[in-house]
Amino acid sequence: MDDGMLTYEDYPPGRQFSLGPKLVRAEEIIEFAREFDPQPMHLDEEAGRESILGGLAASGWHTCAMLMRMMTDSHLLASHAQGAPGIDFMEWRKPVLAGDTLSGNSTVLEARAMRSRPGLGIVKMRHELKNQNGDLVCFGENSVMLQMRSGPEIAA
Amino acid sequence: MDDGMLTYEDYPPGRQFSLGPKLVRAEEIIEFAREFDPQPMHLDEEAGRESILGGLAASGWHTCAMLMRMMTDSHLLASHAQGAPGIDFMEWRKPVLAGDTLSGNSTVLEARAMRSRPGLGIVKMRHELKNQNGDLVCFGENSVMLQMRSGPEIAA
Repeated sequence: MDDGMLTYEDYPPGRQFSLGPKLVRAEEIIEFAREFDPQPMHLDEEAGRESILGGLAASGWHTCAMLMRMMTDSHLLASHAQGAPGIDFMEWRKPVLAGDTLSGNSTVLEARAMRSRPGLGIVKMRHELKNQNGDLVCFGENSVMLQMRSGPEIAA
Repeated sequence: MDDGMLTYEDYPPGRQFSLGPKLVRAEEIIEFAREFDPQPMHLDEEAGRESILGGLAASGWHTCAMLMRMMTDSHLLASHAQGAPGIDFMEWRKPVLAGDTLSGNSTVLEARAMRSRPGLGIVKMRHELKNQNGDLVCFGENSVMLQMRSGPEIAA
């Protein structure tokens, strides 16, 4: 397999991928909230201001979804990624407010062959997102499974 | 404050809340993936079958978002919840495939007053979702902040 796509071997510990920038519009916050997290502070500017979040704020799960999109655009769509087993942890440190612009990076922490799935490796990454003021809004870690360049082909 | 809404005091350790059922339609999987996780196995039935997921499968982040919606419908919208500090962990154990129906529960593990925010308590919960075959598809833990019945009023 040598199709120019990133494989497990391209994710050594220490490698860093840039994320964003991503402008978070009020309409996106409200649209996500209507479907997945219809709490008042995610639906309405006034309710957001009156909450401890201080304004119309994205659901933390929305921030995670935006992070995922930034990861796909940064490197995963150019890779032989095969999904992820979960989220090790994620901390929502500051509200993501309407009008914020998010950017950050993902850094490879560990990489190892998967004993249970020959031809796949698992890569643990740390993700960080900051807003336009440089405030850390979230950080966390999760792992992604990737085909090895030398391994058996799994996806067409 | 005695408006009939759930407060911190209504979340003692051991209390359980039912989640779902939630039918996961192919169109929803694709719609979420287009916006947040456009990897082939989340966009296309054929690509999903050829992947290790075995069919058109929801992004793990989509499963999290659906879990959040089940939590809001189950109890959070009837509560004085004030947001969450993050996700302790989440494991995606089985693919969530188009046509699956998810249901499960959230169980209170711990509850304590927040020293940093007088009038708020923090409640740690364990969440589990199963599919229609009884297979555990995901489980994880996170905490939610809730106003105390006796505390100072924060939201209008």
